[in-house]
Formats: sequence, C-alpha cells, structure tokens
Amino acid sequence: MSSPKPEETIERKSDETGDKVTPWDVNAESDTGIDYDKLIRRFGSSKISPELITRIESIIRKPVHHFIRRGIFFSHRDLESILTVYEQQKPFFLYTGRGPSSEAMHLGHLIPFIMTKWLQDAFDVPLVIQMTDDEKFLWKDITIDDANKYAYENAKDIIACGFDPTKTFIFSDFDFMAQCPNFYRNICRIQKSVTFNQVKGIFGFTESDCIGKIAFPAIQAAPSVSSSFPFIFGEKLKQELPCLIPCAIDQDPYFRMTRDVAPRLNFPKPSLIHSTFFPALQGSKSKMSASDPNSSIFLTDSPKDIKTKINKHAFSGGKDSIEEHRAKGGDCDIDVSFQYLTFFMDDDQRLEEIRQDYSSGKLLTGELKKILIEVLQTLVAQHQERRKQVTSDVVRQFMTPRQLNFRY
Amino acid sequence: MSSPKPEETIERKSDETGDKVTPWDVNAESDTGIDYDKLIRRFGSSKISPELITRIESIIRKPVHHFIRRGIFFSHRDLESILTVYEQQKPFFLYTGRGPSSEAMHLGHLIPFIMTKWLQDAFDVPLVIQMTDDEKFLWKDITIDDANKYAYENAKDIIACGFDPTKTFIFSDFDFMAQCPNFYRNICRIQKSVTFNQVKGIFGFTESDCIGKIAFPAIQAAPSVSSSFPFIFGEKLKQELPCLIPCAIDQDPYFRMTRDVAPRLNFPKPSLIHSTFFPALQGSKSKMSASDPNSSIFLTDSPKDIKTKINKHAFSGGKDSIEEHRAKGGDCDIDVSFQYLTFFMDDDQRLEEIRQDYSSGKLLTGELKKILIEVLQTLVAQHQERRKQVTSDVVRQFMTPRQLNFRY
Repeated sequence: MSSPKPEETIERKSDETGDKVTPWDVNAESDTGIDYDKLIRRFGSSKISPELITRIESIIRKPVHHFIRRGIFFSHRDLESILTVYEQQKPFFLYTGRGPSSEAMHLGHLIPFIMTKWLQDAFDVPLVIQMTDDEKFLWKDITIDDANKYAYENAKDIIACGFDPTKTFIFSDFDFMAQCPNFYRNICRIQKSVTFNQVKGIFGFTESDCIGKIAFPAIQAAPSVSSSFPFIFGEKLKQELPCLIPCAIDQDPYFRMTRDVAPRLNFPKPSLIHSTFFPALQGSKSKMSASDPNSSIFLTDSPKDIKTKINKHAFSGGKDSIEEHRAKGGDCDIDVSFQYLTFFMDDDQRLEEIRQDYSSGKLLTGELKKILIEVLQTLVAQHQERRKQVTSDVVRQFMTPRQLNFRY
Repeated sequence: MSSPKPEETIERKSDETGDKVTPWDVNAESDTGIDYDKLIRRFGSSKISPELITRIESIIRKPVHHFIRRGIFFSHRDLESILTVYEQQKPFFLYTGRGPSSEAMHLGHLIPFIMTKWLQDAFDVPLVIQMTDDEKFLWKDITIDDANKYAYENAKDIIACGFDPTKTFIFSDFDFMAQCPNFYRNICRIQKSVTFNQVKGIFGFTESDCIGKIAFPAIQAAPSVSSSFPFIFGEKLKQELPCLIPCAIDQDPYFRMTRDVAPRLNFPKPSLIHSTFFPALQGSKSKMSASDPNSSIFLTDSPKDIKTKINKHAFSGGKDSIEEHRAKGGDCDIDVSFQYLTFFMDDDQRLEEIRQDYSSGKLLTGELKKILIEVLQTLVAQHQERRKQVTSDVVRQFMTPRQLNFRY
C-alpha cells in the first residue's frame, strides 16, 4: 500500500512565531501568552467557530460548557464528523490522558478533565484515560516505581472530577501493557508506520535522544484506536470506532502523527478539541510547572496557601497606584486573577461585570484577587472533599480492564 | 550516574573486511565464507581457545559438544565468568531465541538450539527462549497474527530438540508483553539508556527506519535480565543472575549493546557463545534463507526431498571429472556436503576418515553426498517423529509463565 501524503505533518522549522509549543515545552514570546490564532495556522487545525458552537448546542439541546463558550477550548480537528456520528446515533468514544510526573496536580491539570467530564455527560459515551507513567520515566529523572505510583495518585484527582465509573476506564501504561495484548499490537502497528524522520519533524527529536523517547509517540497514539480496548468495545469489533480527544494544544503533535498514519492502518483519524494553556501565577508566558510550587495552585493547597499565593504571586494587570488604577483601569488580558476567573467562574454575567469593573478601574486588584481567592478556595475544598471519597478500591475499580456499562 | 565508555560498541564503518554481518544480512566476500577470525577482532569478542575447552571439560567432567570441539561455536564473551559462577555453585541461566519469519524452519535454525539443549543438560540450568514475532512483524511484510502463529509453530520444532519442560520457558513477545509487567519495565529501562546514535552505530539504522525497528533492540536485550522473569527467578530477586546466551554471531550486536548499557542499569553483562553460520546448499557465501526452498534442507523435507536437494544443489568441492578427482582430491573447505557433516556427524573418527578420503580423491562427491543424505534423512526423520509428539498442550505448557523446577 502506498503511503498517503502526510498533509498534517508540519515540520518545526516552519514556525511562524517564536512561540514554542511541544508536549514538553511551552514558551510564549508575548506577555499575553501564546498567539493561538497563529498556532492554529501552524498546526493546521480549525478554530471552534460560533457556527460550530451553535451546531453543538442544537444537537445536545443545552448550552456548551463555558470552556468552549469562552474560547478556552478554541481549536479542533474534525469535531464536525463526531457530531455527525452522534446525530446518526452511531458510537464514538472519548480519550484523554495525563503524564504523572509527581503526586501533586495543580489547577491547570484539571482543565482537560473538566472538559472531558462535561463531554461524557453531554454525549453519554465511554471514556479511556491514559496515564503515561512510561513517558514520565523516559523523560524525567524518576524511577519506574515512582512514575507508576504517581499514576495511581493522580488517578484519584482525576476520579474526583466526577467521572462515571461505569463508563470510564483509567490505565497506567506500565500496567496496561501487561493486561491487554491488543494494546502492544496496536502500538507495534503504529511504530511500523512511523519513521525516525517523521518523529524528528513532528517532535524535534534528535539522534542523541534515547530510543524509548523516539518510539513513545506510538504509545500515546494507540489508545485512540478502539481495538486497543477489546474488553470495552468487543473482541470482534467489525470496524474501529471514531474517537474524540480533548487535550491541551501542546499534545496535538501526537495526534497529527496519529492522523497521518491512520489511513494506512485502516484506523479512523481521531478528532480533537484543543485547549489553551492555563497560565502560571506569574503570567501567561509559560504553562504552570508542577516543580515550582509558587507558579501554581495545587489541588492539595489549603485555603491559606491559596490566599497567600494569589495575593503574593498572581500577576496583576492593575496599575501601580490606586489613583492611577481608578483613572486608567486594569488590563484583563494580562491579569492572571481575571484569567483564572474565566476558567473557574461559570456565571457569564458576573464575569462580564467583573471585567467591566476592573477595566474601568472601579474594581481594584486586591478586590479582584479576593473574588478569585473565594472561588478557588471553594473549588479546591470541594475537590479535596471528593478526593477523600476516592479510596484505593474506587481507584482499582476505575483501573480494572472491564466491560463498561454502555450499549451502542 | 556517568555513562561508562562504550568499549564494545564498534561502528560499522570500522569493517576490516567486506564481509557483511548484521542480524538481518550476512554476506561473505570469499567462497570459503565469512572470515571469522577477522569478525572476532571486529566485534571485540574472544576465540574459544583449546585451554578454555579443557577448562569446560574439567568442570562438567565430560567432553564438550562437537560444535565446540570443531569450532562451530568459535567465539565468546565472558564465558569464563559463567564457568566461575558454576564452579562456585552460584546460579545462572541460559537465554536464546528465534525470529519466527515463517512456519518452515531449516537445519541451520537448529544449531543454536542443539547447542543450548546440550548446555542445559551439562549445567542443569533454567532456560528462556524468546520468539521475536514482533521483530518479524516490524521487518517483514507479514501480519501480526501470522508472525504470532509462526512463533507457536516454530516453538514445536524447538521443543522437538528435547528441552526439559520443567526447566524451559518459551515465549512470544506479542503475548509475553501482556503476561508480565516486569518485561516491559526492563525494556523501558534499556530504551532509556540507548540513543538513536548508538543503534545507528551498532545496527546501521537510518532516519528512514521506522521507530519500531529503532526501539526493538531493547526488546531482544531484556530477556538477558533475570528480573524480566519473576515467576522463574522470584519476585524479590536480591540481585540479577548472570546469563549465558548461545547464538549465531550475527546476533552479537544486540548483546554488545546490552553489555554497553548493563553497568548503568546495575544489570550484569550477559555472557555469550557465538556460532558460525550454517552454509546454504549453494555454498558458504551466505546464510541459508527460509524464503528460497532450494537453499536449505527444511525440517519438513521428505527423505526424497533431502536426497534430491543434496544431489542437485549441494555445492561440491570435488573435481570436474572422476579422473581429476582421483588424482587431485576434493576441497573439504568449500564442499558443502562435508561442511554439513561437520555439523551433524558426531563421530570424530569417522568424520576425519571422510575428510582424508575426500581430500585424497579416494572418496568421490557422489559417495560423500550419499553419506550425508543418510545422516540427514535419519536426523530429519527423527526430528519429525519427535515433533509429532509435540501437541498444542505441550506447547502451551512450555509457553505458560510458571515456576521452573529449579532451586539454586
């Protein structure tokens, strides 16, 4: 079979801007963060348009999540085809994941899971969640045992997002590899179809990279193929099911690669919806980092931690003096506290009031921060409460390969 | 930890001769085949010396196998250290393997297994046998299902060599990956320690090779690590056990790589003994090929097939006319029939008589071929008889991860 032209594989050297966006490194040139419109052009994805949002809302008969409404999930690939599949009452499934690099997850890590939970509820479909503990072992200076332990710890935070245990399968790569023969088989199929030149072009790997890293992209690709989960989708699946992947846009290279090789392997191309990055407390120039405690609000932070971090570290778009602020107003586009509210305050009307009041100077930075602190203290406390309910038994339930309660 | 200097990694460009020896391609420049002395220098291994043979025989208190005596297993790495371990009554294990590229195995494929069976008997140690069905899928134009089927078919021929079922574990990579979490973990440890540059240097991979091939060497390396088999060697192994690998010398690159990375991973360097190649019927310039039926005697050949193939295709070192042969004698060094007898006639005295008679011209090519035909007809018939006894149940027994009947 001849290889199709890899339309979507864009070489790193064709960067339009100096923004760097790979699965391992995100750096923006501008204070307002990544230029997402340029990123869409560079990656070759599509903007989630008002028309598309209208179509989603008419299909699911309710408003979209505010992440979509506010452009936090801003880009997609072939989302239309998933909507058509749903309209035709045909099956599809959701796939997302997390690289468990430490026990501590922060607010930014929740974004894809909040979106995915909403999608699971809206479309009532099965969901698989990959914990790439093998990736973290390969990329970080941690042991396999630690990476694997983090996978199980992080699973608790993910489960605390409210996923339906009868419709959700969570797996660690290290463990799932030894649980399901189909997984390694699909990995091999993909690894046979991708050359070093391709992963070099897509991910920027060099000849000095270890062969584990070079081969890894196939491992993140394989869960987008439904036959990797015969216990969910049936041993004798007649054809692969369509897959929708909600993820931050830095994960897109994996799925560009997957979409490139899919036709050769008779796999459907996975559809995607992409989020922007959750800004660090210090500003939008970079993603939050799990290794810098002051760059982010952790899911384990106390109300006092949250208050201190926001007051001390949240980058302000306000003016230097109260007088100047009252006169000229704050800049919501660079103000991290306001940005955080766009993520976590679901009341559109209240958010718009705050935007107007802060921009006009009516609302001071301290007052804005106070609003955010309350929102986050509530959100994190509720998360901690739900996480407490997630016992080892519950984790085991979610992470056991099993039939899901779902009939197409 | 700093990386040790990779003493054993010899770049392909440093070839001394034009002989090409990789796991996928063997080609000799000379009619007498590969220059094995040069190969030893190029690979940096050691010749199995008469002194070493004497030491083996004094330890096991019996003569070595004629493969060793006749230089068919001619090269080694750290065989002394395995002998010392054995003398100290400490444990070690054997590891060998096969790439199952088709259902049909030929005589040449038996060589490492005959040697391994002899070593298992002589040292009374556990043995693991890897069937690299994943490798064959990656390298050949075959499906995963076919490669996996060949692994199970080939296992029958291997079992027919007489391995002790209580001391032998045979596994298919595709299946074992989903049976034992430790296997994938050790593969990842090795994949993290080897760069593309290293596999490029050792195996000659290029940037156009698929990422499956590039990562594969770690999969062949991992079974040399005893912790890959916790059901055999114990879940809580205090330290890895030494391993001895009998194989054809074209497999050495995998284990040069393994020995390079072993110190960084606290794995012992595996020891090896290397065989020469079993010549094709057409002569020693190349290995036999499973895809050319007239290049080899298959284990499924009938007595008539064997007779026809030897008479028609076995390259002769005899002279063109009977008169010239009687006068000048035949050349045993290039005569394939004589070469085959060195592999399969265990009577040293009889073999020496044949050598002298053929070299002097007393024995004609037709007479030499007749002797070989009888030897091979008997050997293949006996193999077929033993293989018939190897039912699916027996295969399942050998290929089930389990405790082996062995106590150190």
